[in-house]
Amino acid sequence: MTGPRVRAAAERLFARHGYAAVSMRQIAAEVGIGAGALYHYTPDKQALLRDMMRSHLDDLLSAWAQADPGGEAVARLDAFARFHIRFHLDRPDAVFIAYMELRSLEPETFAEIEALRKQYEAVPEAILLDGLQSGVMQVTDVKLGSMALIAMLTGVNTWYRDGGRLDRAAVEDVYARMALGMVGVQTVAV
Amino acid sequence: MTGPRVRAAAERLFARHGYAAVSMRQIAAEVGIGAGALYHYTPDKQALLRDMMRSHLDDLLSAWAQADPGGEAVARLDAFARFHIRFHLDRPDAVFIAYMELRSLEPETFAEIEALRKQYEAVPEAILLDGLQSGVMQVTDVKLGSMALIAMLTGVNTWYRDGGRLDRAAVEDVYARMALGMVGVQTVAV
Repeated sequence: MTGPRVRAAAERLFARHGYAAVSMRQIAAEVGIGAGALYHYTPDKQALLRDMMRSHLDDLLSAWAQADPGGEAVARLDAFARFHIRFHLDRPDAVFIAYMELRSLEPETFAEIEALRKQYEAVPEAILLDGLQSGVMQVTDVKLGSMALIAMLTGVNTWYRDGGRLDRAAVEDVYARMALGMVGVQTVAV
Repeated sequence: MTGPRVRAAAERLFARHGYAAVSMRQIAAEVGIGAGALYHYTPDKQALLRDMMRSHLDDLLSAWAQADPGGEAVARLDAFARFHIRFHLDRPDAVFIAYMELRSLEPETFAEIEALRKQYEAVPEAILLDGLQSGVMQVTDVKLGSMALIAMLTGVNTWYRDGGRLDRAAVEDVYARMALGMVGVQTVAV
């Protein structure tokens, strides 16, 4: 039971103060255990960061495997845009850390995390390539298209607040339409 | 002469380790002055962060005022996309801090920085609104369109490296085309 609590506490603290500013002692205090007991769950802070980032990306990949409707490229890109927004809005701290604390990973861990990120970037790449080859999308560069889509969609995390002008469903509609427009697919106004 | 060196040293250290993990003593050591001498240039670390973020956004707003071609919406959006990428690629540390360390601003300073950010977000908003009203763009929501554009374009900073597969001019071309596509303007393939 303590394992998930340790990870949740570390995630909160890393997101709030940054990895380098947080000590194992602070994490233990946040969980409400002794500093010695914390080492029962994790060898060090770097292992915590690595597990956090790896499970974030593993979860992302397996959640998409579930959500992927398959089939033709336009419907798949629409589904991907909505999925990406939903998944990321549900975990703001994990997303923030995944982007910000790449700088704090040791080289070997960085390579491992980068490989998982590239696996996810390959998802929209494959959709765009399919759309391009089947003549339903206009894409100059599928790699840049994938990076642009991911950045645009993840950006929702920086401004969206529940209870604001638009609810999540409305935001998904608007962004899915922009994502399709970006690759030359014009949809009817929502 | 020491003022700019203090700011540059603080920027490097904040970007590398995060604001909360960096001490005034470390900043002084990075500049090569005594900790006491540092207080001659800035009252505290918060003032350094505030000046850094404020001058980043002031520079951004005045650089756009220079780069803005005016005139019709499609050409202006093309110019904006290229400008935004160029400006941000030139200052990776400042951009990283501007996004990451909003969490570290005291409430009053946060409000001041937010106001400057909103001034910049109003730039693409106004272009999209003009494009919508003149019938050359399809935009469901100009505010979301502005946020999506800015996130997409700033995202170049996360992956672009000089000497990679595409040079800056090629990246600008591809992104300008995607930015226009996002608002329903189809351009010829580049």
